[in-house]
Amino acid sequence: MSSSDRKLHLNAFLTGTGHHEASWRYPGTSPERGLDIRHYQKLAQTAERGLLDSVFLADGYAGRSAGKLEPFTQLSALAAVTEHIGLIATVGTTYNEPFHVARKFASLDHISGGRAGWNIVTTGTESTAFNFGLDVHPEHGLRYEYAEEFVEVTKQLWDSWEDDALVFDKEAGIQLDQGKVHEIHFKGNRYSVKGPLNIPRPPQGYPVLVQAGSSESGKELAAKTAEVIFTAQQTLEEAQAFYADVKSRLAKYGRTPDQLHILPGLSPIIADTEAEAREIEEELNALINTESAVKRLSERVGIDLSGYPLDGPIPYHLLPGIDAINGRKGRYQLVVDLALRENLSILQLTRRLAGARGHITFTGTPLQLADLIEDWFRHGGADGFNLMPQLYPSGLDAFVDKVVPELQNRGLFRTAYEGTTLRENLGLARPAAVRPAPALEAGA
Amino acid sequence: MSSSDRKLHLNAFLTGTGHHEASWRYPGTSPERGLDIRHYQKLAQTAERGLLDSVFLADGYAGRSAGKLEPFTQLSALAAVTEHIGLIATVGTTYNEPFHVARKFASLDHISGGRAGWNIVTTGTESTAFNFGLDVHPEHGLRYEYAEEFVEVTKQLWDSWEDDALVFDKEAGIQLDQGKVHEIHFKGNRYSVKGPLNIPRPPQGYPVLVQAGSSESGKELAAKTAEVIFTAQQTLEEAQAFYADVKSRLAKYGRTPDQLHILPGLSPIIADTEAEAREIEEELNALINTESAVKRLSERVGIDLSGYPLDGPIPYHLLPGIDAINGRKGRYQLVVDLALRENLSILQLTRRLAGARGHITFTGTPLQLADLIEDWFRHGGADGFNLMPQLYPSGLDAFVDKVVPELQNRGLFRTAYEGTTLRENLGLARPAAVRPAPALEAGA
Repeated sequence: MSSSDRKLHLNAFLTGTGHHEASWRYPGTSPERGLDIRHYQKLAQTAERGLLDSVFLADGYAGRSAGKLEPFTQLSALAAVTEHIGLIATVGTTYNEPFHVARKFASLDHISGGRAGWNIVTTGTESTAFNFGLDVHPEHGLRYEYAEEFVEVTKQLWDSWEDDALVFDKEAGIQLDQGKVHEIHFKGNRYSVKGPLNIPRPPQGYPVLVQAGSSESGKELAAKTAEVIFTAQQTLEEAQAFYADVKSRLAKYGRTPDQLHILPGLSPIIADTEAEAREIEEELNALINTESAVKRLSERVGIDLSGYPLDGPIPYHLLPGIDAINGRKGRYQLVVDLALRENLSILQLTRRLAGARGHITFTGTPLQLADLIEDWFRHGGADGFNLMPQLYPSGLDAFVDKVVPELQNRGLFRTAYEGTTLRENLGLARPAAVRPAPALEAGA
Repeated sequence: MSSSDRKLHLNAFLTGTGHHEASWRYPGTSPERGLDIRHYQKLAQTAERGLLDSVFLADGYAGRSAGKLEPFTQLSALAAVTEHIGLIATVGTTYNEPFHVARKFASLDHISGGRAGWNIVTTGTESTAFNFGLDVHPEHGLRYEYAEEFVEVTKQLWDSWEDDALVFDKEAGIQLDQGKVHEIHFKGNRYSVKGPLNIPRPPQGYPVLVQAGSSESGKELAAKTAEVIFTAQQTLEEAQAFYADVKSRLAKYGRTPDQLHILPGLSPIIADTEAEAREIEEELNALINTESAVKRLSERVGIDLSGYPLDGPIPYHLLPGIDAINGRKGRYQLVVDLALRENLSILQLTRRLAGARGHITFTGTPLQLADLIEDWFRHGGADGFNLMPQLYPSGLDAFVDKVVPELQNRGLFRTAYEGTTLRENLGLARPAAVRPAPALEAGA
């Protein structure tokens, strides 16, 4: 693809009322609709109207979310009322079974006609362990080891049905060619799975594989496995460094740079004038519960900040260091770097993180936002963006109605979907099935 | 409720082309649409047009199904295109985690506005173990012990959010009342779950709890837990005995007979004349693959029947006895009883099981079917039926267009949905949340 043909890829990260932590308090948002599927169906339809590649749901298995549906059930209900948009579910490897995950993604991919994507995470929240009969959350490196094996089993399960295994020859009485459905006999360090999967291969071969960790292990897993990476970068320079780093890791896995799209999170507030946009930002920031925000920041950096002056810095000398963090290592580093670089007080830091928890925030006009997007896209910072509007639905409406046409005018974004599957729209090849070695299968 | 007000409850057991094992070969059926969600969406809409209580999906985690989606994803996509019909998913306890199952059902219940049901099974297929890292499938009694504990944890997780925990007070900045969201600190023999669940309590409190095992352990679990039971009975006498047996077990759990609906499977072929219906039956039976049918029968009764004459009986003296069966005990007994009672040859037995694997089959006119339904319903055999049309979609269309109006004319079936949730349509109370004892909670 020549560089002038290269197009942006845009994902909408769905939440109930928006990504600003006080969005639920903002006049006009509807936090009570957080469990109302019609709310999300409308958002997905808006994203599809804007020709976005996909919508995406974060996920976890602990905590007290007031308004969060489970991703498989939610995305399947979105599939039923959309035709083109990709549907990306976060599913953690540490507390799931490969057989169930492979099957649910295959099912979602069949239901949606090839629009499923899997954001592979290892689950960073330590208390999750207690919901699954464990005393201790496996440490970061071990989780990534498990995750690699998990993804390997899952791919083998998807591949356990050859693409032409289904026959449906009524005359001959043959539904499927048994010789094209294979046991996998996977035996790893953590997983042992005989197979085959009990559902035919997904329309896309595999759902699109997405990765969102930015730690060393995360970047390596992404380089080996991922086709899309969601990341958090605060400046173009950081984004360029990350982009170059990750893309340079692909060759050793026999992959080319265009096989992995890097999409930084981008959390905009847009209005027709910059002044109006600033006003929304200030209204939102005035609604932040500072005590809760300091508590969340404390969890991120691993120090209880509640006794420190709000207008002073975080006590850098007490930081535990990245090796001691067993949760989201990449995000820890980003927050500390941001505070240091901009010399932010604790209060200022909570404000900077309120919009999108460390993703870049933007406040301005649609044209200014298109400029930023073009700048990062053309200068080695991004292949597109993971959009995180600070307010839903208004922020998504504004993006689709005002930013998308501008990006199209600049030749940066599609004017029609290129294909019918998420892979086709992302310009990613459909993976061929990898067959188990005959010797292994003979040992069944 | 006076007996004259008592209404039938009807469920449609969905499959791709119908419940006759050769239905996929029958002219006009579309086995290639087995993974096409629009096919099932149309079936669910037809069932809803007929005012049926619910649709239902069987499930398992092993085997080579050519056309079966995963229930949570499938039912969620059906929820999106229907408004009233209940959505019952089979989910097995032996190879799942209570947290995931509680959450997915809560999510489906929120998405569907209170229409979810859970068919609780322990999973009978021994080879399932090999897909989940185990060498041995837990034996029947142990699976039921686990299942009881699993259901208990799951209920506690649903109850971990009080019904009025959500506040969304924008002014005060309070999304939820933390004092109304409880850790459960469940510690049983198999499961240890801290909680709370990460989604608010389902609209129905709990999804409707369904049970489908007819073994001793199955009947006891049903009496303790279930609100609907799907069963297989071949004659009204057997059905009456089962009905009386199960209903008599309720009192010791403090329950009344109307808190559990007993719905035997009923697998009809209907046509305008009996002769036409017989013709369809013969066409279907002519399409059976006898070799496969004998193989399946062999698995059911625990003897390899392939060396025995088709026109002779099964070798009763070689039967392993019910204690040796670690899969579906209830179905084993039913098949053996049927063969003995009617003195069936191996071939005749495969034909009798082809229509619905042991559920009662029916071939005749809509009026004759309405007579059978009324007879069982009025004479202590059933509270309704789990409909298993031998052909989809034609068998469901015929039932909805011709049998439902007749049942309505006889005053046996609703003419409009009574409520908005599956519980309301089934006449089942919404369960109140059970609070953990304060002492337990204080030990957090």
